[in-house]
Amino acid sequence: MNSIETVAIIGGGVIGGGWAARLIENHIDVRVFDPAPDAKDKFDAVLANADRAYAGLTDAPRGSKGSVTWHDTAAQAAQGAQLIIESVPERPDIKRAVYAEIETTAADDAIITSSTSGIMPSDLQAEMTHPERLMVAHPFNPVYLLPLVELVAGTQTDNKYIEWGKTFFADIGMHPLHCRVEIAGFLSDRLQEALWREALWLLHDKVATADEIDAAIAYGPGLRWAQMGTMQTFHLAGGEGGMRAMLAMFGPCLEWPWTKLMDVPELTDDFVNEVGDQCEKQAAGLNPRELERIRDDNLIAIQRALKGNDWGAGKTLARYEAKMGRAANDD
Amino acid sequence: MNSIETVAIIGGGVIGGGWAARLIENHIDVRVFDPAPDAKDKFDAVLANADRAYAGLTDAPRGSKGSVTWHDTAAQAAQGAQLIIESVPERPDIKRAVYAEIETTAADDAIITSSTSGIMPSDLQAEMTHPERLMVAHPFNPVYLLPLVELVAGTQTDNKYIEWGKTFFADIGMHPLHCRVEIAGFLSDRLQEALWREALWLLHDKVATADEIDAAIAYGPGLRWAQMGTMQTFHLAGGEGGMRAMLAMFGPCLEWPWTKLMDVPELTDDFVNEVGDQCEKQAAGLNPRELERIRDDNLIAIQRALKGNDWGAGKTLARYEAKMGRAANDD
Repeated sequence: MNSIETVAIIGGGVIGGGWAARLIENHIDVRVFDPAPDAKDKFDAVLANADRAYAGLTDAPRGSKGSVTWHDTAAQAAQGAQLIIESVPERPDIKRAVYAEIETTAADDAIITSSTSGIMPSDLQAEMTHPERLMVAHPFNPVYLLPLVELVAGTQTDNKYIEWGKTFFADIGMHPLHCRVEIAGFLSDRLQEALWREALWLLHDKVATADEIDAAIAYGPGLRWAQMGTMQTFHLAGGEGGMRAMLAMFGPCLEWPWTKLMDVPELTDDFVNEVGDQCEKQAAGLNPRELERIRDDNLIAIQRALKGNDWGAGKTLARYEAKMGRAANDD
Repeated sequence: MNSIETVAIIGGGVIGGGWAARLIENHIDVRVFDPAPDAKDKFDAVLANADRAYAGLTDAPRGSKGSVTWHDTAAQAAQGAQLIIESVPERPDIKRAVYAEIETTAADDAIITSSTSGIMPSDLQAEMTHPERLMVAHPFNPVYLLPLVELVAGTQTDNKYIEWGKTFFADIGMHPLHCRVEIAGFLSDRLQEALWREALWLLHDKVATADEIDAAIAYGPGLRWAQMGTMQTFHLAGGEGGMRAMLAMFGPCLEWPWTKLMDVPELTDDFVNEVGDQCEKQAAGLNPRELERIRDDNLIAIQRALKGNDWGAGKTLARYEAKMGRAANDD
């Protein structure tokens, strides 16, 4: 398959901007389309955050970034791109209209990925001229710092594009995870939403505040989850007996009637306002930009820390730096 | 309240050993009772892990450790201790028998904490002579490294002991979290189990393997959760609209019928063996001791990293080092 030299970014914003930042950092040119009046300001803010983040993430020489050009239509942006990344609003009709327009100018074998978190690729590709090159590549915010990207094929997707994705996204510092079954929420969001649902119940029943819920994660299991997922964490907790011992010991507890996971609290205005107020209070006067800087500094530090132990996200960073070293030698 | 100079550790093992390791590191003497034949070997292994961990966690001078002595009965171990930490098996009858024995020798105002994850303090204290000094102090494995400890009062617990706990556990490098409602699973385990339940469904339905589930956490949201819990993460993801915007956008999705959280997969032998096999494969030939060393190295590195940004578990570490600095000056 052709190497990727130019990528069309259809839809800026936090996700599209994050993709663009990672791509230009990897010396790939991007062609952007986003019709919103403040699109370029938001996009440039993401790029500035990312530039700062990459400067902190690695001591390796970064070389020069790829170029950024803005275009008046999605079709124009897609011209000459080997890869087109769509990150427009989560509306199937909007996305399908974008693909129809892109397909008027894109090469037949240009790869089109959607950043969608909630719409199935089989739905997205249904009316396309060349549906086989459409797949989901679902990233996580901030896209320029978090390695995870879920790859999901639709029923008409040619598997060679999934295989391409496993190599390409790894090359730009990510950890591609093939979600082999087309399922709502894919993998990561399903797991996150299970936890979020329980958190909403704790808030609803006034068992805990947002601050207390977050402390229950960030000072305990959250630290573990930055380097080892829930399965391996519990397997290790079972000692010599491993996961089998954990399931024997705690399996019955999972079925206790006390679990509130049977349904979802009603999102009344009062409840939503209460939760919103608590989250604002948590932010303790810091605005989103300031919180983003803190978050990014922490994510940088954590990944550098894990790199020292050749583990988890530290491995994606090490592989990325090795590739950068080679690229700097080629310059 | 009296300062804590001597702590009785009733029940060694991973949790009791972890408590002992943290206490002696903080120059507090421990008196241990555990009747199991291999108790001392397991205990000493935890202490060795902890010693290695603390050496890596901080560059501050560590001073000398508190002493460790072994005793033939729980009553003997409890003599002269200002605090008694119970970490015996999760059986209410066993725990109550231990408290009855302890109360024959313990000072009336010696504090008794249980490390239980599943039994309510009101149940534990029901038959005690002095129930008011019994509370839950629920730690997280590895106890010598993870800061979180949940404090839970029973109906008869005097609140002054909860207030004592907020100071004492912070002084030994932890983040005490008062779980203000006596609820099964407290806070952290409820949240973890929600995620684990969804993971078990994904395995049961063969949507993903243990390895894929863990990657979906460790390369994405897990990194975020090491420094910011789910509430603040989603609040930040909502940008200027914050959590309110997130609930508006994703609230309806939480109710979609596709969620499998309505019940729990049946834990048949076949299913348990399949899950166990996958977890063993994940471990890739590393035995539990090796995995523990890797885990500890990562947790050390993450906490040191967060300390640089004055955040999350980095703050507990900084506070701990400040206190150690003062202690070293007093030596």
